[in-house]
Amino acid sequence: MSGNTIGKLFTVTTFGESHGIAIGGVVDGCPPGLALNEADLQGDLDRRKPGTSRYTTARREDDEVKILSGVFEGKSTGTSIGLLINNKDQRSQDYSKIKDSFRPGHADYTYQQKFGFRDYRGGGRSSARETAVRVAAGGIAKKYLKQQYGIEVRGYLSQLGPIAVDKVDHSVTNTNPFFCPDETKLEALDAYMRDLKKEGNSIGAKVSVSAINVPVGLGEPVFDRLDADIAHAMMGINAVKGVEIGDGFEVVNQKGTEHRDEMSPEGFHTNHAGGILGGISSGQEIIVHMALKPTSSISISGESVDINGQSDEVITKGRHDPCVGIRAVPIAEAMLAIVLMDHLLRHRAQNSLVNSITPIIPAQR
Amino acid sequence: MSGNTIGKLFTVTTFGESHGIAIGGVVDGCPPGLALNEADLQGDLDRRKPGTSRYTTARREDDEVKILSGVFEGKSTGTSIGLLINNKDQRSQDYSKIKDSFRPGHADYTYQQKFGFRDYRGGGRSSARETAVRVAAGGIAKKYLKQQYGIEVRGYLSQLGPIAVDKVDHSVTNTNPFFCPDETKLEALDAYMRDLKKEGNSIGAKVSVSAINVPVGLGEPVFDRLDADIAHAMMGINAVKGVEIGDGFEVVNQKGTEHRDEMSPEGFHTNHAGGILGGISSGQEIIVHMALKPTSSISISGESVDINGQSDEVITKGRHDPCVGIRAVPIAEAMLAIVLMDHLLRHRAQNSLVNSITPIIPAQR
Amino acid sequence: MSGNTIGKLFTVTTFGESHGIAIGGVVDGCPPGLALNEADLQGDLDRRKPGTSRYTTARREDDEVKILSGVFEGKSTGTSIGLLINNKDQRSQDYSKIKDSFRPGHADYTYQQKFGFRDYRGGGRSSARETAVRVAAGGIAKKYLKQQYGIEVRGYLSQLGPIAVDKVDHSVTNTNPFFCPDETKLEALDAYMRDLKKEGNSIGAKVSVSAINVPVGLGEPVFDRLDADIAHAMMGINAVKGVEIGDGFEVVNQKGTEHRDEMSPEGFHTNHAGGILGGISSGQEIIVHMALKPTSSISISGESVDINGQSDEVITKGRHDPCVGIRAVPIAEAMLAIVLMDHLLRHRAQNSLVNSITPIIPAQR
Amino acid sequence: MSGNTIGKLFTVTTFGESHGIAIGGVVDGCPPGLALNEADLQGDLDRRKPGTSRYTTARREDDEVKILSGVFEGKSTGTSIGLLINNKDQRSQDYSKIKDSFRPGHADYTYQQKFGFRDYRGGGRSSARETAVRVAAGGIAKKYLKQQYGIEVRGYLSQLGPIAVDKVDHSVTNTNPFFCPDETKLEALDAYMRDLKKEGNSIGAKVSVSAINVPVGLGEPVFDRLDADIAHAMMGINAVKGVEIGDGFEVVNQKGTEHRDEMSPEGFHTNHAGGILGGISSGQEIIVHMALKPTSSISISGESVDINGQSDEVITKGRHDPCVGIRAVPIAEAMLAIVLMDHLLRHRAQNSLVNSITPIIPAQR
Repeated sequence: MSGNTIGKLFTVTTFGESHGIAIGGVVDGCPPGLALNEADLQGDLDRRKPGTSRYTTARREDDEVKILSGVFEGKSTGTSIGLLINNKDQRSQDYSKIKDSFRPGHADYTYQQKFGFRDYRGGGRSSARETAVRVAAGGIAKKYLKQQYGIEVRGYLSQLGPIAVDKVDHSVTNTNPFFCPDETKLEALDAYMRDLKKEGNSIGAKVSVSAINVPVGLGEPVFDRLDADIAHAMMGINAVKGVEIGDGFEVVNQKGTEHRDEMSPEGFHTNHAGGILGGISSGQEIIVHMALKPTSSISISGESVDINGQSDEVITKGRHDPCVGIRAVPIAEAMLAIVLMDHLLRHRAQNSLVNSITPIIPAQR
Repeated sequence: MSGNTIGKLFTVTTFGESHGIAIGGVVDGCPPGLALNEADLQGDLDRRKPGTSRYTTARREDDEVKILSGVFEGKSTGTSIGLLINNKDQRSQDYSKIKDSFRPGHADYTYQQKFGFRDYRGGGRSSARETAVRVAAGGIAKKYLKQQYGIEVRGYLSQLGPIAVDKVDHSVTNTNPFFCPDETKLEALDAYMRDLKKEGNSIGAKVSVSAINVPVGLGEPVFDRLDADIAHAMMGINAVKGVEIGDGFEVVNQKGTEHRDEMSPEGFHTNHAGGILGGISSGQEIIVHMALKPTSSISISGESVDINGQSDEVITKGRHDPCVGIRAVPIAEAMLAIVLMDHLLRHRAQNSLVNSITPIIPAQR
Repeated sequence: MSGNTIGKLFTVTTFGESHGIAIGGVVDGCPPGLALNEADLQGDLDRRKPGTSRYTTARREDDEVKILSGVFEGKSTGTSIGLLINNKDQRSQDYSKIKDSFRPGHADYTYQQKFGFRDYRGGGRSSARETAVRVAAGGIAKKYLKQQYGIEVRGYLSQLGPIAVDKVDHSVTNTNPFFCPDETKLEALDAYMRDLKKEGNSIGAKVSVSAINVPVGLGEPVFDRLDADIAHAMMGINAVKGVEIGDGFEVVNQKGTEHRDEMSPEGFHTNHAGGILGGISSGQEIIVHMALKPTSSISISGESVDINGQSDEVITKGRHDPCVGIRAVPIAEAMLAIVLMDHLLRHRAQNSLVNSITPIIPAQR
Repeated sequence: MSGNTIGKLFTVTTFGESHGIAIGGVVDGCPPGLALNEADLQGDLDRRKPGTSRYTTARREDDEVKILSGVFEGKSTGTSIGLLINNKDQRSQDYSKIKDSFRPGHADYTYQQKFGFRDYRGGGRSSARETAVRVAAGGIAKKYLKQQYGIEVRGYLSQLGPIAVDKVDHSVTNTNPFFCPDETKLEALDAYMRDLKKEGNSIGAKVSVSAINVPVGLGEPVFDRLDADIAHAMMGINAVKGVEIGDGFEVVNQKGTEHRDEMSPEGFHTNHAGGILGGISSGQEIIVHMALKPTSSISISGESVDINGQSDEVITKGRHDPCVGIRAVPIAEAMLAIVLMDHLLRHRAQNSLVNSITPIIPAQR
């Protein structure tokens, strides 16, 4: 298999399995001169890391990232940045049961078929553990975007099972273990997750991520549109089954007069498009939603087969997130930052004026 | 701008504007020995082409494709295939009004900002006219997939505005101008579109596309997953704002016990996953849905600005599809075929046994 | 086969066979706003085209290029540029003899083995005819480089068989059919080629190409070095068997004190490096040499085998260049321009200051 | 900067500086099921590593590689392979002198100009230290090629300054510290290097690398030819200034009748082409030569400038190879193995029969 790299000019390549020695990666294409150290990346890693609340897996990992190269005297040199995170709390024995059978709804089956065998410990390469590296890499992009362009990327949980948020207050998101931006839903979420754990079940979720201050003009028609690359990045997050830009599936029953975002010299009147028109950023807020399926690693027995095709019952012991959507919030932010960074560099290649272009109308309205 | 190429081993590069001399492209990576001629591609081009019903634009184009290279004595040679489609029925004068102003909700604005000027005739490069080349290229992939693996790719309209289909009968889809697979909805669709045209408005739509007989094992974790690449390809179709695999956004409120597709020696019991687990095909039917926004080119006046940022009113004359979702059906099929073809070749690179691998359980259940 | 595209940000994709309907390609990544028309490209196409002197093949082609897209109102739009050149003077019947056997030293054999069959007419895709598209594409790069940066790319024949040039006068190069920059060698070249034709044989050549006014800083270590990408582009020209940067193979017997280009505030003292240090342009003249083998299509009988592996004698009738190196001059120029263009765009992505960076010492010394 | 990745299906991405914490990389695209451990890679790392003879730098590094991922139960899993080599023996203080000035002929100058500042310790990213990772990655390719196809890649020193080898005995190459395949030259080499060290100077070299048992058919015309990709890989090795395939620059003065490799049912009669015709492997031995310049890090004072453009004298203290060509032998082998591996996978994508194709004539003659 190949395919462990994303991006064209700002590229992120990852390696590592859930229960291997370490996970890590290479970030290639960071411009020189960016002030950068491990602390810049640790904040988001801590947001993503397991073992921080009773709503996520009990596995405890420090997720301390080391920058092995590409930074000298506190600044990026313009060369490739090596990232390393050691694995610590593996309990591989938990997985001996699934060594020879497949969790229904899990990549166990497809990995076995594709590769002929698989690292079954903790899901091996298919584990969400790999996303820690994406978060570290995304941290580099985030810092550059914020510092050079004032771009801010912000994610949040927008729905968990039947509980949808009613309002988005970004100042609330990081004050609770759900990344929920609506304080009035915290109690309901807590109660729901308690019951779910008791039940031994898992639940799906909807995660949203947006970016403000994105310059107008990012995105390469025809195939490498900004929205297409965002869709690629988000659908590449473990468990994601749907991606929307702006109004998403609501557009199916919208008329042209409802959907189009009218403009006046003061700016756009609305943002149904989610900040992207014709695959190119409009300068408005970029808005992305995604749906994450309930994890298949649950302690309720399911019908399955073993590697010989014989009937089997599977119960997942191990330690798992009952809602993988929660910890997906910093991952989604990282992926959006990586895509924006890549397109920013691509855009600059064509036009060195991106800092100075005067938008015809003000953005962000 | 770059980004006019899709695929890694089976690549499609397109060129051409709505009102230019011709559109065309290059298909690179078609294996040698495939029996191929223009007639193989013309069928889908005819399905997509404008001017065939009163529900689509009145522009008339034959969309006759010429194969300029890569085929010798009726068979693909393994070299790059040049495709050419001449433009015929341009009425560029229709567009003089929007030369200096922007249709709200259209790429007019973002192209102008990105490139500093734009070919405003018929939307130039942002026009859906470019997708004819994708359909021709997809026809090559379709033929190979069908002949070598029995893979069939089938699209249909699943919803238009408020009218959703209740059942999917693939034998019905191509017997009506809506690509609607549910005969009982044809009358309602006809009535709806009549009213819409009278109103001068446009409407969104949902399009679905699926593939059967896809071998288990296609897709490259981590970033180049099959679902991620499908999302990229579909979100890259003009007007698409959302993409789902399998149950898509319904997973948000599903529990693990509901969502997981249990297995027995007879096969999978359900297909909530849409045929992809961990980014890799499971052998089940691959199911994709997408949402297409209502076109912004409508004859109802909208508030906008001109290229100097001054207030303006825009009415689109020209000839436009009131529902771009309809003609997107063959485009979505083409894109799915292109992605599958690419991943099939990538898979073969790693493992030459794809034809002979015995699935552990039967697929397609 | 894939691999018909070169470049990362400025990409050129070609299609077409020697005796097909047409050859052509797509140039993707040309910045918007470049004044461009067919006449800009025709000059180099005319330099490369066959049938212009008795020293090259007698096949007569106008090689008139059509720009099908990507240019509007006389300027590049930033979208992909479609190029088309019709084939006219094919005499496919000349090739019936080699249909079932292989010219020794020709790609006939390897194409047959790789693809299982081949378009044998005029060498099909392996014919140098394809390079006309490269020359057209390179013309776009040349124009941009010259206009925006003052970069000039200049090729010449530096040796033909035993006749090596003694001096390089760029004003002489284009005044003779050999692209020879040394007037004193023209007579010898003429005599040599006369004898060679009589003999029915072919001869190798050395071609050189250089670029001045290249900004310091182009090239991406580690793998995508400027010199590595130049080597890739040049070795990809038909018949090339060797590539040198600067002193090339002479460095084998140089000491460090001889080779190193010392510097003073007035500039570099020498240019043994050929303008590239550590894979990055130094601001000095970029100097590239390449060796082209004698064509295998000659009228002197050679021992070979047929497609069944049986012994055979092969004589090439058809019309061929006795020295393919001569017409390689504009091709080498085009390839160097394409590589420089690509790296210029890549460099701008990282650093928008390339126009304004003050070299520490003056270049071009 | 980007560009730290090579390959399309078998990709190698590296990171790390001469005096950083560690160097490492990611190998993506290794097929599953290959028996693999660190010992498989250590042999070539030991051949390349410094401090093993008086002819190379005195820096001592164990160059012990750790495989961090992608191998499970002793076999490659098909997922990305993380490689790590710690740096040990840095003496960064040696470099304080060149912090603010540029060694003539070194990448110091171009890195400073490209990136605005640089990691000056030991050359930072431009150091040949990075090539240890290439050697480790190449070891994976070598093992696969040997085991699955019997392909063997063998390098040797073919010339050092004025001393050229007269015969190539592969059994001799690894018995001496020069990688010299000609026992009769060892004494002369020893004497030459002694004098050179005394003098404080450096010398150029010619290195050759070949591969046997390469299947016919590898290589993708037009741009991604096997020879073009080899040229790219070799010119990307530090200090390489020229690359030849087969007869290389000797073809300039060869006639068609001399150069063409005639064939009979028993095989090819000669191998002037170096095993590649039309960019595609012929089944014959692949033969590559390259020229490496003398290192610019010498203890004889040279004229230069400092970062302010002021006149300066530079003497390089530190510990350096007086002939970087010597240790380039395992690097060149690794790069050839990586390119062959990549093309093997690409070829398989198009045609799964590469193992079973019957060459029309026997190869290796």
